[in-house]
Amino acid sequence: MVKVAIFGYGTVGSGVFEVINKNNETIQKKLGDELQVKYVLDLRDFENDPVQDVLVHDVEIILNDPEVAIICETMGGVKPAYEFTKRALESGKSVCTSNKELVEKHGAELIKVAKAHNCSYLFEASVGGGIPIIRPLITSLAQEEVESITGILNGTTNYILTKMELDGADFEAVLKRAQEKGYAEANPEADVCGYDAGRKIAILTSLAYGKNVDFADIYTEGITAITKADFAYAKQMDSTIKLFAKSVNKNGKYYAMVAPFVVNSENPLSSVKNVFNAVLVKGNMVADTMYYGKGAGKLATASAVVADVIDCAKHLGKHVNIVWEDEKLEISTIDSASRRFFVRVASTDKTAIEQNFGKVEFLESVSADECGFVTEEMTESEYKAKAAKAGNVINMIRMD
Amino acid sequence: MVKVAIFGYGTVGSGVFEVINKNNETIQKKLGDELQVKYVLDLRDFENDPVQDVLVHDVEIILNDPEVAIICETMGGVKPAYEFTKRALESGKSVCTSNKELVEKHGAELIKVAKAHNCSYLFEASVGGGIPIIRPLITSLAQEEVESITGILNGTTNYILTKMELDGADFEAVLKRAQEKGYAEANPEADVCGYDAGRKIAILTSLAYGKNVDFADIYTEGITAITKADFAYAKQMDSTIKLFAKSVNKNGKYYAMVAPFVVNSENPLSSVKNVFNAVLVKGNMVADTMYYGKGAGKLATASAVVADVIDCAKHLGKHVNIVWEDEKLEISTIDSASRRFFVRVASTDKTAIEQNFGKVEFLESVSADECGFVTEEMTESEYKAKAAKAGNVINMIRMD
Repeated sequence: MVKVAIFGYGTVGSGVFEVINKNNETIQKKLGDELQVKYVLDLRDFENDPVQDVLVHDVEIILNDPEVAIICETMGGVKPAYEFTKRALESGKSVCTSNKELVEKHGAELIKVAKAHNCSYLFEASVGGGIPIIRPLITSLAQEEVESITGILNGTTNYILTKMELDGADFEAVLKRAQEKGYAEANPEADVCGYDAGRKIAILTSLAYGKNVDFADIYTEGITAITKADFAYAKQMDSTIKLFAKSVNKNGKYYAMVAPFVVNSENPLSSVKNVFNAVLVKGNMVADTMYYGKGAGKLATASAVVADVIDCAKHLGKHVNIVWEDEKLEISTIDSASRRFFVRVASTDKTAIEQNFGKVEFLESVSADECGFVTEEMTESEYKAKAAKAGNVINMIRMD
Repeated sequence: MVKVAIFGYGTVGSGVFEVINKNNETIQKKLGDELQVKYVLDLRDFENDPVQDVLVHDVEIILNDPEVAIICETMGGVKPAYEFTKRALESGKSVCTSNKELVEKHGAELIKVAKAHNCSYLFEASVGGGIPIIRPLITSLAQEEVESITGILNGTTNYILTKMELDGADFEAVLKRAQEKGYAEANPEADVCGYDAGRKIAILTSLAYGKNVDFADIYTEGITAITKADFAYAKQMDSTIKLFAKSVNKNGKYYAMVAPFVVNSENPLSSVKNVFNAVLVKGNMVADTMYYGKGAGKLATASAVVADVIDCAKHLGKHVNIVWEDEKLEISTIDSASRRFFVRVASTDKTAIEQNFGKVEFLESVSADECGFVTEEMTESEYKAKAAKAGNVINMIRMD
């Protein structure tokens, strides 16, 4: 019997309780041992909920109980999750978490603490909800030199972009509906500005290269400037627009960014719709592999936490090693990254456009007073200089 | 230093040699130890190939060398791979393989032998080539009750179906071109009749439920009867046609089959094109997760073998447990499975059609002397009886 405690009985925590209880038989068969939730920590009471029998309000009861081998930290936020996690690991208890903020900020350190105390710190649920991505990346792709990771890692923005495309609606209108339906927060900044996706690509990139990526080094651009006109142009290119969280290892330089991209229908990520998430990992030997599923939601996220619990339970008294060192991974500014750009300018003077932007591929204009076109490949800083010189750019979206 | 031997220097074996040598530094960083290929076993010589330095013709040299901890079995076929694998495991050497035939026939037994000798038998590369699917299924989804597995598991047939759709061509013509290009074998039976996909779904289903699925119990139907007319009807339904390898756990009964299905564009499997493979696993908690990548090819398949080598190297002297018992998993005949059917009959008498098949949804006929329609949901045996009574069915494809 392996005894587990859950920190926080919110959405994910109550999901973990449900998955362990409902699928207990299956888990026992696969693990060869039984999992039992001995405690759930929450400040609140939950009358008429079976959790009440195992509910405690004091973390010390759990940290001081030598029977508890594994803790599911589903509180979210850095305080007090960081302190609780560190103390649990120091007492030899493995911790499995869905807390992306804590993992992004302190992942490398907490893995080190776990290693020193022969226990594990696992965080499959912190990226991509229920999608197995972290374990495949660090085990199934351990032999690969990762050339790039491209993810649709935020369900809210993918839902908004999908609806904008299908309904031909503009951003503000769709956001409002998404908020009414509970698919977007009242304050949607973390999602629509790309910060949530940025934290997740920071974690994945740290794991791909074994060094610490600082979220602050990641160029982050959201979807608030995308309009239905952009989708009309994308359609002409047999493409759609997706918010990509992307990191690239090219000629020994590392780039990481979150930004909208024009994505051709040939790219399997183009068909990832609504709140689904997906991650495409390109290795130097295996080429493209993609992982797809529900990027959020109570049971999907909880399922990923429980997968980690089973991994810890299989390795009790041992450290499940994850290579993620404190050493900083230098992220280059995107200025030197090279690609094609889809651009709209408030001008119909094609000669002037080509004089400035070089040879371009013109699209059919969606309104009489503008031109939409795709440039040839150039660096971000070259593009920036040309756009500044033009002075009439309505919008620019990078080409995948 | 962990010493490895490779059995067979064919396509996959030479790929394994290449992956281990080229990515040695990355592997060492992730594993914390170095991998070295000490021997390659092949009856042939390979002059001017670096493999020659480690080439041996006698398996006994490898089996009797206590330094060799892990063997990559990339010979294919049952003889002598079965005997070599068993002897290797009995001497405590872990075996990693791409040999789906051997795994499908003797997987349960060889895992048992490995367990008894504190070593491992791993076979990620036996299904889906480079796609991480077996490890995610047995680790990341260990907490899930698997409700269904649906795979595009054969690259040759997916290439043929993709080309038929894009070029509006018929099966025979596309097969001929595929053979010229080397995408299909001179004798394409194992691919186009669904046997290859059948072996793979047998393996995945055995792993999902921990009991042994007999390939002979799997209903197998190939793509040889699919025509361009079928694709024309599918297009009307915003769908395509894919060869699915599928197993379902419904009301305590297990079904497994390989057959062409009409797949709507909403299903992420519909956009898996050409030689790519993908597997959609539906769990009772996480819902749909999908895994996508190259289902074949030298380096992709070799990469999956090396992932297993790293896993074995992390667990030297221990057994990486896979639950796959000898006990047979009862597979129900598909007669009682229920679904809708797309049917073409050589008749234009819609009244007679509905008298026989019940209420149907008629499609626009693609030729003057036939009707195409979709039935309501019924069991396979109900459909069979109605089709026999009609006596004029041109083709039937199941609806996903």
